[in-house]
Amino acid sequence: MENEKFDTVKFISELVKFKSVSALAENAIDVSKCAEFLNSTMLKLGFDSELISTDLHPIVYAKRKSRGGEPKVRILCYGHYDVQPVDPIDKWIIPPFEPTVKDGRLWGRGTADNKGPFSCVLAGLMNFLSKNPLAPIDVGVIFEGEEEIGSPSMLKFVGERAEELSAYNCLVFSDTSSASVDDPVITIGLRGNVTFDVRFKGPKADLHSGLFGGAIYNPLQAMAEVCASLHGADGRVNVPHFYDGVLPLEDWEKAQIAANPFGPEDIKKAAGVHELYKQEGMTSSEACRVMPTLEFTGIGGGWQGTDAKSIVPSECFVKISCRLVPNQDAIAVANAVKQAIKERTPKAVEVSFEDHMGASNAYAVFPPHLRGNCNGEKAADSLGKIFAAMDKSVEGAFGRKPIYLREGGSIPLMRLLKDKTGLDCVMLGLFTPQDNLHSPNESMSLKMISRAEECYESFFKAVSEV
Amino acid sequence: MENEKFDTVKFISELVKFKSVSALAENAIDVSKCAEFLNSTMLKLGFDSELISTDLHPIVYAKRKSRGGEPKVRILCYGHYDVQPVDPIDKWIIPPFEPTVKDGRLWGRGTADNKGPFSCVLAGLMNFLSKNPLAPIDVGVIFEGEEEIGSPSMLKFVGERAEELSAYNCLVFSDTSSASVDDPVITIGLRGNVTFDVRFKGPKADLHSGLFGGAIYNPLQAMAEVCASLHGADGRVNVPHFYDGVLPLEDWEKAQIAANPFGPEDIKKAAGVHELYKQEGMTSSEACRVMPTLEFTGIGGGWQGTDAKSIVPSECFVKISCRLVPNQDAIAVANAVKQAIKERTPKAVEVSFEDHMGASNAYAVFPPHLRGNCNGEKAADSLGKIFAAMDKSVEGAFGRKPIYLREGGSIPLMRLLKDKTGLDCVMLGLFTPQDNLHSPNESMSLKMISRAEECYESFFKAVSEV
Repeated sequence: MENEKFDTVKFISELVKFKSVSALAENAIDVSKCAEFLNSTMLKLGFDSELISTDLHPIVYAKRKSRGGEPKVRILCYGHYDVQPVDPIDKWIIPPFEPTVKDGRLWGRGTADNKGPFSCVLAGLMNFLSKNPLAPIDVGVIFEGEEEIGSPSMLKFVGERAEELSAYNCLVFSDTSSASVDDPVITIGLRGNVTFDVRFKGPKADLHSGLFGGAIYNPLQAMAEVCASLHGADGRVNVPHFYDGVLPLEDWEKAQIAANPFGPEDIKKAAGVHELYKQEGMTSSEACRVMPTLEFTGIGGGWQGTDAKSIVPSECFVKISCRLVPNQDAIAVANAVKQAIKERTPKAVEVSFEDHMGASNAYAVFPPHLRGNCNGEKAADSLGKIFAAMDKSVEGAFGRKPIYLREGGSIPLMRLLKDKTGLDCVMLGLFTPQDNLHSPNESMSLKMISRAEECYESFFKAVSEV
Repeated sequence: MENEKFDTVKFISELVKFKSVSALAENAIDVSKCAEFLNSTMLKLGFDSELISTDLHPIVYAKRKSRGGEPKVRILCYGHYDVQPVDPIDKWIIPPFEPTVKDGRLWGRGTADNKGPFSCVLAGLMNFLSKNPLAPIDVGVIFEGEEEIGSPSMLKFVGERAEELSAYNCLVFSDTSSASVDDPVITIGLRGNVTFDVRFKGPKADLHSGLFGGAIYNPLQAMAEVCASLHGADGRVNVPHFYDGVLPLEDWEKAQIAANPFGPEDIKKAAGVHELYKQEGMTSSEACRVMPTLEFTGIGGGWQGTDAKSIVPSECFVKISCRLVPNQDAIAVANAVKQAIKERTPKAVEVSFEDHMGASNAYAVFPPHLRGNCNGEKAADSLGKIFAAMDKSVEGAFGRKPIYLREGGSIPLMRLLKDKTGLDCVMLGLFTPQDNLHSPNESMSLKMISRAEECYESFFKAVSEV
């Protein structure tokens, strides 16, 4: 099998047939079967592969040592074979687990997130190895089955295998976005995230609004007043020490963001809004990638039914999520926000907090050929050569230089990997805004698939020759 | 039967056995049976009584013309025989529909609201008539079965019978509160009420907070900012024209409110709060009786489950209730609040409103011996004599003068009655904060029952002699 050309579309299609929805207990067997398929595939491809049981879904870890003497480079690849649930199922035109090629795309759940993209990495790698079986490269490939539910087992695995993993030069994966098939993006940062509930308690029980209204501090009013105070008229977060450590955006990064064809008008259209949120001294495209945020993700309290109920409600809650950028500490930021909320809550109302799991700091890696002061993160020198290889491979396969962008989302695994093993990540974006990630009618462009596997073949060749 | 002393506790007990819960379809027959019992009782008591079918629950309307020539006075009495649901049923120590005398109280659903109080009115009336069968008084008695669900049929009935009803001199009823059995209150006002939903819409669907956060005006943030703007630092409602027409509190009324033994410390204790809400230039006891309010009675939007969801939510809502005082127009106040909300909602977010049924203006009647400029409401001169009769009867039965208080709750029927028929109301409060209205373990004090029937007997005697 090692000498055949890798049939990427067929391979993705085989994977899509597994209903590997990690969030649903009823699909646990499908998730396991998908892991077993990947493990046996890697064995057939000549790798030394382990199927590792965890508390939840298996991890596949496959290794192939250099067959050409001392390796010049050690690359670890990563992908996740679990997928999002398919609800609402009636919105799917093609059934989610029946992969179908149509209109230049491969349709099905997981085609874009992440079965398609990681198959392109594997295809590029295998096509390279079949032509260069003796290349001086050590390769590891990890597939996890819990990315869509926060990677608990994978985070544990990285901690347990930190020493072994730190022998690699970097991690390579594709689970971020590009602007389009013609506008490839290399992702150089991910925001961190910290979330918690805030509960406001007024009277001990709902009170009659006629008898008590006017004498009682309504906790919904107190909550609104506190929440409204958390952003200033300039659009920035109005919490002391919130921005401590955040460095100003540099000109090279401003230029990269401006080069992204998915601009403010596209954000408006995608969101379905007339106007974007304004932060002083920032474009919206910059704000959602390189600035921290304080978002309200849920709010509730009092009467939830139709019409009216004559009450002064007893309690209410708001859920807060802060996205973080480099040099911010998740716990310190959460504490600063909580402190501001405590100080601003009127004495007549009690406030309490409940932390959620999974706080993570931001991760960023600034390729040496672009970065100035590297915004607080210093990349290893050896990484410069690997980035240069990817830069050149993207240009060859896509016909243009990549855009280097930080992304607003969070992948806690990458931050942890950096902290535990020192490994940095090279992230080529292979899904696009057209691909309907996490939504009905997910698909991946066939053009993207063929360009991506070509790019990765070239990448593995270039890093082996360095 | 007309010559026996009315056995009030026995009569209330008979009434409590009917499960006349107007809100529950399963109890419709019990509601009807209770109405039939009242109708046959009134016939036995020598009244000309009608059992009137409505779209929902029956109305009983009983009349007794003067048997002593031209009547000197025409009094209409009112009560409601429907009761609140009994949930949570497991909190009742004595089953709600098994009336029981214990610890100086009569226990059961409806004992205090309103079967007990209206039975005291009837007892006083019948005891008076049995001793004075030829008294020159016309009496009407109306019992409705929909008060706990907004009195829709009764409001219609008042409109249809407006001319007939306007022949009475006033309405007498007891469905408001006193501070205690020893602190009788005559209620001289009820607040109006207008309620509506406000909906805020941001992006067309929930967005990924990582990818979009910072570029989108979160509708929960917009809602918090708008809601926070609706009260000023002085605790007053910060909406232009909200207080238009509201007259300052007069000294006599301040003194009455101060005389109420249920003061700020009791409000705190009843509500279970450390501190009360402050409005400039007002005590809390004043604010919850004579000032209009803008309350948030419910709020919701975004993720309602445990932990976090990475979204910028698409939409959210808040429910607003305004309690109103004399000279405010419910529709004008609602429009002023909506206008302020529209003007303060950022352009990036859409706002819309949904009105609820049942907007009502305030009702107040200021007894001539107390009022100064009568705060915008002018009472008929004949009413002065009726109030004087009640004042004297209360003093005789309770051993002290009544306190004259406006109450913060709303009874839309009284406002409508005034508008359609010109009738004012004399309202003696017969339930107290100890009686657990609308809650498990409702009860009425036996001492209150005996004082109330004595008071009403004296009242009917006094008004007939005027």
